[in-house]
Amino acid sequence: MRVKGTPYRTIWMEDGVVRLIDQNRLPFEFAVADCRTHRDTARAVREMVVRGAPAIGAAGAFAVAQAFAEAPAGDPWPYAREARDRIAATRPTARDLFAGIEHAWRAAESAIGSPADAALAAAQAFADESVESCRRIGEHGAALIGDGARVLTHCNAGWLATVDYGTALAPVYVAASRGRSLHVWVDETRPRAQGARLTAWELGSEGIAHAVIADNAAAFLMSRGEVDLVIVGADRVAANGDVVNKVGTLAKAVCAREFGIPFHVAVPPSTFDAETADGAGVTIEERSEDEVHYQAGPDEQGTIRRIRVTSPGSPARNPAFDVTPARLVTSYITDRGVLQRDEIPSARESSELVAAAGLNRQ
Amino acid sequence: MRVKGTPYRTIWMEDGVVRLIDQNRLPFEFAVADCRTHRDTARAVREMVVRGAPAIGAAGAFAVAQAFAEAPAGDPWPYAREARDRIAATRPTARDLFAGIEHAWRAAESAIGSPADAALAAAQAFADESVESCRRIGEHGAALIGDGARVLTHCNAGWLATVDYGTALAPVYVAASRGRSLHVWVDETRPRAQGARLTAWELGSEGIAHAVIADNAAAFLMSRGEVDLVIVGADRVAANGDVVNKVGTLAKAVCAREFGIPFHVAVPPSTFDAETADGAGVTIEERSEDEVHYQAGPDEQGTIRRIRVTSPGSPARNPAFDVTPARLVTSYITDRGVLQRDEIPSARESSELVAAAGLNRQ
Repeated sequence: MRVKGTPYRTIWMEDGVVRLIDQNRLPFEFAVADCRTHRDTARAVREMVVRGAPAIGAAGAFAVAQAFAEAPAGDPWPYAREARDRIAATRPTARDLFAGIEHAWRAAESAIGSPADAALAAAQAFADESVESCRRIGEHGAALIGDGARVLTHCNAGWLATVDYGTALAPVYVAASRGRSLHVWVDETRPRAQGARLTAWELGSEGIAHAVIADNAAAFLMSRGEVDLVIVGADRVAANGDVVNKVGTLAKAVCAREFGIPFHVAVPPSTFDAETADGAGVTIEERSEDEVHYQAGPDEQGTIRRIRVTSPGSPARNPAFDVTPARLVTSYITDRGVLQRDEIPSARESSELVAAAGLNRQ
Repeated sequence: MRVKGTPYRTIWMEDGVVRLIDQNRLPFEFAVADCRTHRDTARAVREMVVRGAPAIGAAGAFAVAQAFAEAPAGDPWPYAREARDRIAATRPTARDLFAGIEHAWRAAESAIGSPADAALAAAQAFADESVESCRRIGEHGAALIGDGARVLTHCNAGWLATVDYGTALAPVYVAASRGRSLHVWVDETRPRAQGARLTAWELGSEGIAHAVIADNAAAFLMSRGEVDLVIVGADRVAANGDVVNKVGTLAKAVCAREFGIPFHVAVPPSTFDAETADGAGVTIEERSEDEVHYQAGPDEQGTIRRIRVTSPGSPARNPAFDVTPARLVTSYITDRGVLQRDEIPSARESSELVAAAGLNRQ
């Protein structure tokens, strides 16, 4: 997307430098971080300067390209191997990161000419393909958004989480670009507030009408007929269609069903997980209590402060995701079209799809 | 209840002084505010130093008693009338406030001896009756809480919102006092975070096992079998049983039904509103956007800071309450017992109940 007319993506590479929008400083400051070496890029992934599975995948691919460019020309492999392990260790559970790394690595391995040139071209292609996949999600999903629609979304599945366009927000951007009037309700998405911080910033930057709501207010708006559809992203879609996504997604899906509101999940191919039969088997990450206890933001003088927002001494519990059963999902918005539950990639298809996209699902 | 062994109620009167726990400073500081005149008490209500309908009712009654004590002995009425209007103007939509004011005022009007003495005795009786009503709610509700139960609650309907015991938390306190082991999940209750701030503080002070959760996490815990029952308070219960309560209550009720978890509403007599047929007709207060945009709390040095938590420039929407349909309510925990929907006070009964309690529902 375009931030105030500039040609930024969330992450891109130019002249050997990986450049990415610093998401730790958003929404209170807009800055582009320059990662001049693969070590810089790895650090940016580890410190969540860049986050969101597709964006991290591109970071992994670009970092491998940087490593080959830095390596001794005669025998780049020992250096590159060490670099690859370093990049992979930044966020060991991020599947897309491995896919990006692997894509660039394999291109270097099978290169006829320079491994560095091959890795760079492959990394660029990986990022471009990711953008194209999200663009197609947007094209297909835009058909679900009528003129005047009020869309509710949860967390950030916008272009900041991808290389460009986003997943859940791609249909919103495409619909808006076609001149459709629309309004987005942005769930705050406690505890990390990705909705209030990132989604609200994205939509504001793109000039899309929106309002932040407390997560508690979503059901009220649904009950009063002020929500026409819900679109969320996903961290993983099991073979039976169950959706693992940011905690709070489940409550929105249950309430959407209660009030007869369509609930759509926007997903790139890499999100379909053929090896997970259903959501019941998914281990849900429990994160630090401190995410519940503390919030950070600028005070009236603009100084970033971290404050306690819960009663001191009280413990907290912080599950990061939940599982929305497939029966509550109206449709899956994919780069192949808007699919029903029985049309989503089965275990076998999913593997083929992944192979076709050049992704290694280790 | 007892705060660390001291004999505090939320609000009480001694030697003409109204004393109340300063809820604007909780949970980061515990302080008792002394209101020496009716004007001080009125200001405390207006500035929400005391909040929660039953607690405000007692404040109104005590303030009227103070006004009569301050008035000229010969003809106290002009002074008292002016004071009454001042007290009533502090929070013009708070029904319980008017009930408290009226209770003390009528006692003064019908006094054979000193109006000041009569108002004081009536105010004290009003507060005591409020405590007794909550205690009975606790007795009846405790029967619903088995040993080892995990109770989820929303907002603060504990003793800080009443003169003592609370409504939703009264059954928890009574069950705990009987030696039952239990655990309370405390919804943060954004945007004002009354759960994270007040309920967590209350439970911590009383030694009750609990953990604060993001509002988003409630459905996850329900889906994983970690919630045995939900108990919430109510701001108003319509004649058909629909429940108006803090925004977010509706989502919890819908999810509780989805996962087969009992959903109870604890209510004192004054909360049954015979004049409202159902929840559809209730106007929901929309409060300032700033409650969504800003949060306050201590930084690492203990200085209270107010920070922005949403993207600057983004608007917010802030409905303060929602309506839970009666069909989602398992039972109403009242001072007369645990009632089913068809047992709650009907329009006629409700009026009688109110009259019997000496409350004027203007």
